[in-house]
Amino acid sequence: MSRGEQPTPNYQYIISELEKQNADAYVHIGDKADQMLWYFTRFYGPDRDYAFVYVDERATLCAPALFYEQAKREFPGAEVTKTQNSNRSSAAMRAVNVLRDSSSVSRILVPASIPHWAHFELEQADYEVVTTDSIRNARVYKSTHEIECIRETMAIAQEAMRHAESILAASTTAGNELIWNSAPLTTERLRREINAVFAKAGGNDFGNTVVGAGVSCADLHFNGDDDIVPGETVLIDLGPRGPSGYFGDITRTFVPGKVHSWEQNVYEVVSEALEAGLKQLNDVPGISGGDVHETIASVIEANGFETGDVDVGLYHGTGHGVGTSLHEPPFFSERTELESGQVITVEPGIYDPYRGGVRLEDLVLITDDGIENFVTLPYSIEPQE
Amino acid sequence: MSRGEQPTPNYQYIISELEKQNADAYVHIGDKADQMLWYFTRFYGPDRDYAFVYVDERATLCAPALFYEQAKREFPGAEVTKTQNSNRSSAAMRAVNVLRDSSSVSRILVPASIPHWAHFELEQADYEVVTTDSIRNARVYKSTHEIECIRETMAIAQEAMRHAESILAASTTAGNELIWNSAPLTTERLRREINAVFAKAGGNDFGNTVVGAGVSCADLHFNGDDDIVPGETVLIDLGPRGPSGYFGDITRTFVPGKVHSWEQNVYEVVSEALEAGLKQLNDVPGISGGDVHETIASVIEANGFETGDVDVGLYHGTGHGVGTSLHEPPFFSERTELESGQVITVEPGIYDPYRGGVRLEDLVLITDDGIENFVTLPYSIEPQE
Repeated sequence: MSRGEQPTPNYQYIISELEKQNADAYVHIGDKADQMLWYFTRFYGPDRDYAFVYVDERATLCAPALFYEQAKREFPGAEVTKTQNSNRSSAAMRAVNVLRDSSSVSRILVPASIPHWAHFELEQADYEVVTTDSIRNARVYKSTHEIECIRETMAIAQEAMRHAESILAASTTAGNELIWNSAPLTTERLRREINAVFAKAGGNDFGNTVVGAGVSCADLHFNGDDDIVPGETVLIDLGPRGPSGYFGDITRTFVPGKVHSWEQNVYEVVSEALEAGLKQLNDVPGISGGDVHETIASVIEANGFETGDVDVGLYHGTGHGVGTSLHEPPFFSERTELESGQVITVEPGIYDPYRGGVRLEDLVLITDDGIENFVTLPYSIEPQE
Repeated sequence: MSRGEQPTPNYQYIISELEKQNADAYVHIGDKADQMLWYFTRFYGPDRDYAFVYVDERATLCAPALFYEQAKREFPGAEVTKTQNSNRSSAAMRAVNVLRDSSSVSRILVPASIPHWAHFELEQADYEVVTTDSIRNARVYKSTHEIECIRETMAIAQEAMRHAESILAASTTAGNELIWNSAPLTTERLRREINAVFAKAGGNDFGNTVVGAGVSCADLHFNGDDDIVPGETVLIDLGPRGPSGYFGDITRTFVPGKVHSWEQNVYEVVSEALEAGLKQLNDVPGISGGDVHETIASVIEANGFETGDVDVGLYHGTGHGVGTSLHEPPFFSERTELESGQVITVEPGIYDPYRGGVRLEDLVLITDDGIENFVTLPYSIEPQE
């Protein structure tokens, strides 16, 4: 029931990055939606700005005074200081106060995302402010504890997927409509059922519950309402935030009612592409996400579909890291070697904006001995009870 | 079931602000969590950066190419342009391209919140970039359509509150425990029940479901797990985002089991303070939020409790605007006159970090003839079935 003890953020990475870039401190300023900041602070406060300062091997959170108790409870670092209420300047100014308490700080690292006004205030305080995106790599390798958090979220995601699948299986066909609980089933009705499973388990859909039906499957992030017609593809992509704050990611596609040949064929091609990608990841140590993408694309092309910047076929990346963000490094679009301890999606898809689309996505952990798949749900084009 | 037609953003406000500040364009860059950007774009896309540009009385959304279809569907402005994938620079660079397509732009307004790297790129493109927070005031006056959206969210919030209240009423006392459905009731169990009501109705708790019990009520934004002991205050503050994207806000406090004198007394004082605040708002046109806060504080002080920067008593602001953000102007901490068309909370509270706390909060619309209260739930210290 409890949110449990949080994994320890990788502050060591900051230390080595400061050394590498010859800097004295790292400063991050943002609000509760900033998932990088959350990684370092574990503070899920109200909608105000706050600051994280790492200096002299000491982590400090500057939180609004009203939420000091919560910040002290949640923050795993050394110290929490109070900051005044809501305005943007005060988080940066409190960070400046922390920096001034420390010995001889002159050069500080910040991420590209901090509010420009906060950046301005840091410069006004006479620091040399250096922008870096490399700190985000602190999150690339997951600890055992983080892996357990992701596993918990994936259990909830699979429970929700099973619930959705069983609703599709229990629905009946009436002409062009699919009927569930005496009313036409739509993508939004299905989405709400899914999101309620997350909520009951202490998670949150985070606006990431994609449910498309027929042509709306080709819209990669469909969050609208659409009728579900028997025989259409129903694409369900879930990216919930679990009770621990870690995300999960899974996609399944079903066809309720009679399965026609286009849908059957596309489903089989995407299944084959997923299998090939997973096999390569499992068998070949040291490959890059780009290699896996090429394998997936070659299976799809060998079956007569196009890939790349196309209207029909595969037109998106096929993998990314998952952790305290739904999308984080490593990205398959980058050609970095995948390594043990990384958690990544594998997600081939084929779409036709006039017919529908199929995507299948698993989430896997790279280990020294191949991959471990967090997903235990079978693949089935026909929804199972 | 559908998300329905969205209210039209107040672009007129931008036009008059550009004129007032002698500027040629307004540029806003942020991600899906940026609620000010959402106000102008209605685009609730994936976790990438995007840009909103207003120039030559024309609104343009620069969205990632992969989500172009969704952006076209959701954005009420004139034009959607595609931008390249994920990195932060490209949203700003696409905004620059839009600006360059327009006639003689030299001075642009931006909010303080845009990523500092985006600000840097705008300056590198040789624009005079002026930071303003005044554009946020575009949201202060709600249209009839926006008021309907808030009313819908408040119906869902009240349904969830009633569900929580009925769980408390149905629970039984067993020594120091409150038992519901054969297990001890905790703040987290109650929170999950509440959040599932939101999800089923197409809303989202947005991390704002505060449930405190006893001493954790004094922690204004308690989102942890705590046992609920009979006779303690149970403070429930809900700030969900409804299916339309508009927020609601309501707080009730209950005492399950036997009500003791401290809790009874504090509840009565807070009720009296709320009533006095609502009455003043209803009867006196043209007062400020600061006036209402003083009225509330004076009732609390007259009953022997302290207010301000204190450990026991009232130590927070007692009102703020609600709309596409949970907290937005007007704030009671600012002494601006409240005017017809504004939607504000009124929320007195008294807390003792060793005993518990009571807060009662309604959400009201200011009209030309007094206030309309969105909340129809009665107040009751004893939870009702």
